Amino acid sequence: MAKEAITPREKDYSQWYLDIVAAADLSENSGVRGCMVIKPNGYAIWEAIQSALDARIKATGHVNAYFPLLIPKSYLMKEAEHVEGFAPEVAEVTRAGGEELAEPLVIRPTSETIIGASYAKWIHSWRDLPVLMNQWANVMRWEMRTRPFLRTAEFLWQEGHTAHATDEEAQREVLMILHDVYADMVEKMMALPVLRGRKTDKEKFAGAVNTYAIEAMMQDGKALQSGTSHNLGQNFARSFDIKYTAADGKEEYCWTTSWGTSTRLIGALIMAHSDDDGLVLPPRIAPTEIVVIPIYKNDAERSAVLSACERLTAGWTGKFRWKLDDRDYVTMGFKSNEWEVRGVPIRVEVGPKDLEKGTAAIARRDRPGKAGKAFVPQEGLTDHLAALLLEIQQALFDRALAFREAHTFEASTYDDFKEKVEQGFVRAYFAGDRSDEDRIQEETKSTVRVIPFDQPEAEGTCFLTGRKTTQQAVFARSY
Amino acid sequence: MAKEAITPREKDYSQWYLDIVAAADLSENSGVRGCMVIKPNGYAIWEAIQSALDARIKATGHVNAYFPLLIPKSYLMKEAEHVEGFAPEVAEVTRAGGEELAEPLVIRPTSETIIGASYAKWIHSWRDLPVLMNQWANVMRWEMRTRPFLRTAEFLWQEGHTAHATDEEAQREVLMILHDVYADMVEKMMALPVLRGRKTDKEKFAGAVNTYAIEAMMQDGKALQSGTSHNLGQNFARSFDIKYTAADGKEEYCWTTSWGTSTRLIGALIMAHSDDDGLVLPPRIAPTEIVVIPIYKNDAERSAVLSACERLTAGWTGKFRWKLDDRDYVTMGFKSNEWEVRGVPIRVEVGPKDLEKGTAAIARRDRPGKAGKAFVPQEGLTDHLAALLLEIQQALFDRALAFREAHTFEASTYDDFKEKVEQGFVRAYFAGDRSDEDRIQEETKSTVRVIPFDQPEAEGTCFLTGRKTTQQAVFARSY
Repeated sequence: MAKEAITPREKDYSQWYLDIVAAADLSENSGVRGCMVIKPNGYAIWEAIQSALDARIKATGHVNAYFPLLIPKSYLMKEAEHVEGFAPEVAEVTRAGGEELAEPLVIRPTSETIIGASYAKWIHSWRDLPVLMNQWANVMRWEMRTRPFLRTAEFLWQEGHTAHATDEEAQREVLMILHDVYADMVEKMMALPVLRGRKTDKEKFAGAVNTYAIEAMMQDGKALQSGTSHNLGQNFARSFDIKYTAADGKEEYCWTTSWGTSTRLIGALIMAHSDDDGLVLPPRIAPTEIVVIPIYKNDAERSAVLSACERLTAGWTGKFRWKLDDRDYVTMGFKSNEWEVRGVPIRVEVGPKDLEKGTAAIARRDRPGKAGKAFVPQEGLTDHLAALLLEIQQALFDRALAFREAHTFEASTYDDFKEKVEQGFVRAYFAGDRSDEDRIQEETKSTVRVIPFDQPEAEGTCFLTGRKTTQQAVFARSY
Repeated sequence: MAKEAITPREKDYSQWYLDIVAAADLSENSGVRGCMVIKPNGYAIWEAIQSALDARIKATGHVNAYFPLLIPKSYLMKEAEHVEGFAPEVAEVTRAGGEELAEPLVIRPTSETIIGASYAKWIHSWRDLPVLMNQWANVMRWEMRTRPFLRTAEFLWQEGHTAHATDEEAQREVLMILHDVYADMVEKMMALPVLRGRKTDKEKFAGAVNTYAIEAMMQDGKALQSGTSHNLGQNFARSFDIKYTAADGKEEYCWTTSWGTSTRLIGALIMAHSDDDGLVLPPRIAPTEIVVIPIYKNDAERSAVLSACERLTAGWTGKFRWKLDDRDYVTMGFKSNEWEVRGVPIRVEVGPKDLEKGTAAIARRDRPGKAGKAFVPQEGLTDHLAALLLEIQQALFDRALAFREAHTFEASTYDDFKEKVEQGFVRAYFAGDRSDEDRIQEETKSTVRVIPFDQPEAEGTCFLTGRKTTQQAVFARSY
């Protein structure tokens, strides 16, 4: 798909997103309602995200396991809030091997229940704790309105599930995951600054005592919840009878947690950095960091240019993720445009004139047009590119952060709030209750995204109720 | 689970297998019939297999993608042999989001059909070919009799799906996958020698023109099919209308292939190498290659031994996958036994006497008891262990190969065949047809595993029909 086929953000942000997904060949709809095909370009991004998350999950002491796709419906019914949250959107297997099943099986919408049933069997003593597991899996939630990556019936994710001897330890776990695994990966690898905080009761996970989240701002000022970490207290332990005997001989329910990130992160990545020319990928998560395009008009030039490319790229494998685009059935312009649309951070063009001058033409994807183009000496090219990749990574983070700051507002009255929340995040003193949150959502389509961890020392006035409070909340419309 | 809980192979091979799975804590049954929980020890083996296969799949030019879990039932019905093979064992989703579905969706038993539907949309011209994709996924086949890893309703696998412009290219692909991806991984990483060849029509994949397979021998003489590669000819291309326009403007159906390996490989690994003391893992696929056990009786010894361990293992991270077992709430004997049961290739014990003598005690898992124990100098320990890991890897392969050779027989009459096939593989001249294969299966429970690629020059006499033929087949009972 050519650049011209991408609707500009200003014109129709929502269509722009769909156009980027199509133009960069990331995913497409399948013959099954709400289920997408993740195409190789999209899946390679997921593999990069998986690898970055998996390394952090393991480095913090967790091990991977795998639990069944299908869950007896009765399991889902055991935790009261959980069933209310998930039962309406499950897909049910009622027939298998040619026979009707006595009890329907649901395709996991999340695995607290079936993992809880295992933990109840595995955990007996304080010596068995903590249990620190994660699984990479597909899950299914029968959504009515779907959008590629952001909201699909089937999606891919990781879900961590841990069990602890004390509430304090469970709480440390959920915060550690939020900061050291999720925020660290999303900020450092995806170049996406996130707000960190706690969800209100209205917004928390069905069955949790507390949900913590990281929230990122998209270029339309909306929030995208990019990872959640739940302190489940003893709720699931009671429902599934997950008990342990303490060192002093007393029997006690475990404290459990769960936490997840999904293919939604690909949606966040697209919407945070891309522009009207196509996808923009941060180097650290880009499946291809550098593409080299040889420029030539005839066989003699081709041969000279290709051998120069070979010389220039010696030693790159292992150092960069890179490709040489030596296709000879498409034009140079087509190639350059295709790699631009697909978001490759750096394009290097080498032609006969470059050979004469000892240069290469560099194009930075994060600065389209002339601003991102430069001729650099062939000598020292590798070092130059290594430094440039770091620079681009940082530039994307800085730009996203500046954008968020420019679109984060304060509000002291509800009228003020209504105007500002159309344009981005509103961080304001808030002392309302759940019914106030419902009203705000109904009237402004915005919700509390997080109650940030960093709170002011000073008291202020709630923009809605006028009550004095020390609590600030961040509101936004969201995906 | 203690060693004593493992039933010896001689007594009950089938129970021995289940005992190993339990004792090494690899998997267990779940609350859903036929669906297992893959526990961390088992999943770590799967991750090692995945990583070894994925590297080979990518190195041979394939890219990963992801297609939906659910397939419209009508898709499955499009290819006549395919539906006959898979329809009886699918699980069907008939209700989702609280409503009955107009058309049932089946959980993929394999993805030729839904991927075929995508390929039909993606492929137009010869320039779009070949399409070389793979996916890592869970699949579901409603089996009546299940065994952990070997046969479960849900299992994990990779399935490659490719489309080509010519039959020759498709045929090259299926053989390349069989040799360079599957056999190479299983022999080099899993230390498991395999027979390579073609399946008979009776045994081939439902919908394929030809199926090729690698088959490994288990310690009870049975065969375990460890990977299959299918040349689908134009069968699926016709059913799903996957066409391309050739360079000369003619429209033609594509030639497609599919190929898969699954968590069955873990079953093969267990049954090929393990012994009556527990699991035995080849070093290259072992999640932990070396475990270090400090031996001490009091705090002073503990401190001296632990600092010696620290010194001895300096530089090991990145070189070995290793663990220090410094748990102080279990005995040294318990530790040693636990790591033996779990199959860790080398155990290194360091105690106060070793400190005096400048040695470490080494135990090889592939040679239980005294034969595998040695005291080696602390000086040069790292190099010694690196060499020993290579030696163990080769020793396991050699042992499995010698076992297979000792249990592979010839047969010139059917009576002879019946006796021999009880003890292992029979390689014999065979000129029978499908009804002969049916009869052999009924009477001896054995089937043609492969018609090996390496065939004799000389003609011989079919053991069953007495006809002259140059074709030899390998028969065995199988998992």
